[in-house]
Amino acid sequence: MTNGPTRDQVVVGVDFGTLSGRAVVVRVEDGAELGSAVHEYAHGVIEDALPGTGQRLPHDWALQVPSDYIDVLKDAVPKAVAASGVSADDVVGIGTDFTACTVLPTLADGTPLCGLPEWRDRPHAYVKLWKHHAAQPQADRVNALAHERGEPWIARYGGRLSSEWELAKGLQLLEEDPEVYAATERWVEAADWIIWQLCGTYVRNVCTAGYKAVYQDGRYPSREFLVALDERFTGFFEEKVAQPLGELGTAAGGLTEQAARWTGLPPGIAVAVGNVDAHVTLPAARSIDPGEMLMVMGTSTCHVMNGDTLAEVPGMCGVVRDGITPGLWGYEAGQSGVGDIFAWWVRTGVPPEYAERAAAEGLGLHDYLTALAARQEVGEHGLVALDWHSGNRSVLVDHELSGLVVGLTLTTRPEDVYRALLESTAFGTRKIVESFEASGVPVRELVAAGGLVKNAFLMQMYADVTRRPLSLLESAQGPALGSAIHAAVAAGAYPDIAAAAARMGRKRPAAYLPDERRAAAYDPLYAEYATLHDYFGAGGNDVMHRLRQIRREAVRRDEG
Amino acid sequence: MTNGPTRDQVVVGVDFGTLSGRAVVVRVEDGAELGSAVHEYAHGVIEDALPGTGQRLPHDWALQVPSDYIDVLKDAVPKAVAASGVSADDVVGIGTDFTACTVLPTLADGTPLCGLPEWRDRPHAYVKLWKHHAAQPQADRVNALAHERGEPWIARYGGRLSSEWELAKGLQLLEEDPEVYAATERWVEAADWIIWQLCGTYVRNVCTAGYKAVYQDGRYPSREFLVALDERFTGFFEEKVAQPLGELGTAAGGLTEQAARWTGLPPGIAVAVGNVDAHVTLPAARSIDPGEMLMVMGTSTCHVMNGDTLAEVPGMCGVVRDGITPGLWGYEAGQSGVGDIFAWWVRTGVPPEYAERAAAEGLGLHDYLTALAARQEVGEHGLVALDWHSGNRSVLVDHELSGLVVGLTLTTRPEDVYRALLESTAFGTRKIVESFEASGVPVRELVAAGGLVKNAFLMQMYADVTRRPLSLLESAQGPALGSAIHAAVAAGAYPDIAAAAARMGRKRPAAYLPDERRAAAYDPLYAEYATLHDYFGAGGNDVMHRLRQIRREAVRRDEG
Repeated sequence: MTNGPTRDQVVVGVDFGTLSGRAVVVRVEDGAELGSAVHEYAHGVIEDALPGTGQRLPHDWALQVPSDYIDVLKDAVPKAVAASGVSADDVVGIGTDFTACTVLPTLADGTPLCGLPEWRDRPHAYVKLWKHHAAQPQADRVNALAHERGEPWIARYGGRLSSEWELAKGLQLLEEDPEVYAATERWVEAADWIIWQLCGTYVRNVCTAGYKAVYQDGRYPSREFLVALDERFTGFFEEKVAQPLGELGTAAGGLTEQAARWTGLPPGIAVAVGNVDAHVTLPAARSIDPGEMLMVMGTSTCHVMNGDTLAEVPGMCGVVRDGITPGLWGYEAGQSGVGDIFAWWVRTGVPPEYAERAAAEGLGLHDYLTALAARQEVGEHGLVALDWHSGNRSVLVDHELSGLVVGLTLTTRPEDVYRALLESTAFGTRKIVESFEASGVPVRELVAAGGLVKNAFLMQMYADVTRRPLSLLESAQGPALGSAIHAAVAAGAYPDIAAAAARMGRKRPAAYLPDERRAAAYDPLYAEYATLHDYFGAGGNDVMHRLRQIRREAVRRDEG
Repeated sequence: MTNGPTRDQVVVGVDFGTLSGRAVVVRVEDGAELGSAVHEYAHGVIEDALPGTGQRLPHDWALQVPSDYIDVLKDAVPKAVAASGVSADDVVGIGTDFTACTVLPTLADGTPLCGLPEWRDRPHAYVKLWKHHAAQPQADRVNALAHERGEPWIARYGGRLSSEWELAKGLQLLEEDPEVYAATERWVEAADWIIWQLCGTYVRNVCTAGYKAVYQDGRYPSREFLVALDERFTGFFEEKVAQPLGELGTAAGGLTEQAARWTGLPPGIAVAVGNVDAHVTLPAARSIDPGEMLMVMGTSTCHVMNGDTLAEVPGMCGVVRDGITPGLWGYEAGQSGVGDIFAWWVRTGVPPEYAERAAAEGLGLHDYLTALAARQEVGEHGLVALDWHSGNRSVLVDHELSGLVVGLTLTTRPEDVYRALLESTAFGTRKIVESFEASGVPVRELVAAGGLVKNAFLMQMYADVTRRPLSLLESAQGPALGSAIHAAVAAGAYPDIAAAAARMGRKRPAAYLPDERRAAAYDPLYAEYATLHDYFGAGGNDVMHRLRQIRREAVRRDEG
């Protein structure tokens, strides 16, 4: 049922991040952001010791407490409404997005196990945050077995499932704490759990079902596959994961009386099906047409884009039918390190006199180095870098790779390395774009969102290096805006996401256009990057893997 | 005539460096250093503008003024004698060493052209210091022609003559200022010119004749070779370069009355044949036996060693019969960048909090980073670097190479990169050692001298990486001590350099012994270095050359 927006209607979008949740009140008619509020999670990210018992957690663990998410609903939502100046009665829907894969074990009614006295001392009873990386051994076995058995779905994930996803985390749960595994009646994405709390109905969103739970062509991986991993794992998907699916932009249900009390919103209003932070941002950037590639650029970059057809692009994170927008194939790729590589250099390679000069000019170190780097001609620093300090997600899917800088001389300055690192991430994006195009998936335009968009020099560089127009999402609250757009569609204010995005999305089209002179100057540097990429990343010289192994052995000797 | 040293006899050694000259008074009997003094050159290194006229010099020029060298004799020698507390009458000889190839045009009587009114405004009339690098185009043509004609001598220089040497600098003189070339009656190594000034006789030392003037097997390159370069160049060696040779450790003559007045030393005392700073240091380190490789370690490293036999080792700087010690083949190799690479990192990659902590501990940045690096196990940083920030002298003989660091992660710290750079120079020395041994020239022991020997961690690393005992020259004035040893032999106090070195040299044998556990841990890192060395340096991927070219073109665009 679509009524079309009225002048007073608003929706609430809630973005559940890693450390906090943000609620934004958005006008349905034109997407105006009227008010927002942030609530920090009381428990943050639990990486060292379990709350209560103080039990030490192993390396690479990252847990959360689900009641923190409820507190966002209780605190940030009413504050955002108050800040917006609108009446809560004008709110017609609520939508949310979440980090993913963030997953928790619950009873059949959605009660988190970690909230029950009998399980609260067990680490495996808690939410496993997306960046819980302790299931890598399980992921390695999953991937080896998938290739061994020739499972058809593995190609949809660039040939490798992540240790972050539901399957590896679930297998870790089974193997490390079978009792908690047995007590786990549902293994729930937090993106869906929060919707369950809002409307009382458990609906799996197609986005995380596809990207994080390997749901492809109407089914999850087979019982035979699960048995081959561990015979106790047979019923994992059927018993704990499978659930009626909900299409993005539809309503999972109406706001319950309890959730209405938490949020101060009217009971019964539409609660949109859950979603993921990067994916929900595409309509906020008014970029749901095939070929418009959104880059959410922060410490890392997530690339999401719709395509008309299915293609198995080497090294992408996943391709899922209806996974971003109903009716289209949703593609996801990523670069493991972007902003955090720049930050690494700033904390490592910037001498005191630079810090002093930046302070004297009132600039942060990033801005200062960018200003110095921007004065150079393309290629003037004589450097090429590989952007693999955090490994490489796309297109090599190899987290044991590492960074490289070549071309250093005695006259190489901090800003030279900084610029080479900026360029390396632009080259990494060009690799991804070329990989898509080589697989028959066109990329016509880049759309940038996230913290790095304020660096105009970097944005222009991405346009030049990729020879693509680069548009900007004109909102600092892209995910929450995207969630609000989904809420508006779920509330029936628009017939579909495209229509809502056209009115509510905020895009500055072609904010940066490629400069052919610079583009041509970047080409030979990119050619060097591509050669080094294949040599170090695709079997020419496995030195980076061996150095990781040498390092691990050295650390063991050091501790021994 | 050998009398044997008496209790009171002393000699004076004078080391002519790049910026100053140092005189040391040394007891003949036991090599005790009794006093020293330094005199800074009034004109220093002339790189920007000619004195007097202020005429701008092109890029890569480096000139000196010969009267500055005379001032060292007038100032530093008497001061050193005064500081020693001995009577000048006890001085029985004087020896010198010089940077090389440092070369000047003179009249037939040794008068420098730059001292004559008609030539003093011509840059080509001045001393060309060793680091005058503007004759590279001439050197390139010399090398190409030598290979084209199959000249037998080219293999004695690792396949390439340097732009620093007499031939390239002489050809530059001819081509750029034929009038000064025509007026040049003698083209004289400063090492020999200073001896000429001391004793009134022009004797070419066999060291620079061989290493810098291509004198091999009793002859210079042929007239035919010179004609093929430029027909006006035909008589270069015969007319301007050739001169009776003097063996090292013999007397070129006796001190003239005039030089006696300059120095305050007795007229008639022995003046030793000229020598070169690195080469003269070998006896000071009591390391003239074949297989004892002296490393003079400063901003760069010069490796000198005697061998019993002739071998044409790939990538060495030169092999010269009697070139270091009469009766032996003198080998020279080098690393273009060592201490200056560490200094580059200290001025580039060390953040303010490191500077503060170092200051709080009262340590210099090098010492602070070394202390942090020394706490690690071998391989713990996970890095491998190539030490080519100044190019590679031995064994690749390629100054267009550049530095590389691989294995970088977000947790890589400044001390990690610092240690990887230290290691890269040790790996570079191991490459040189292996190249000698593969050519049948054994290297039994390393002997370190120069500014870097005070870094005990670095010294131990060189012993571990090369699996060689590492000895130390125990004098901060190694070259001057070596010159003094040659003076003692020239004065007849010892029968030969070996006998003098045994009494006067200062060596701490095997100060560092290789630790097999660490040596074994370095092996896999060295294997990675060697693979990268060949890939980037020997044709696998010419990216470093292309980056230099890209850089040059970018700078031109920037200036255009």
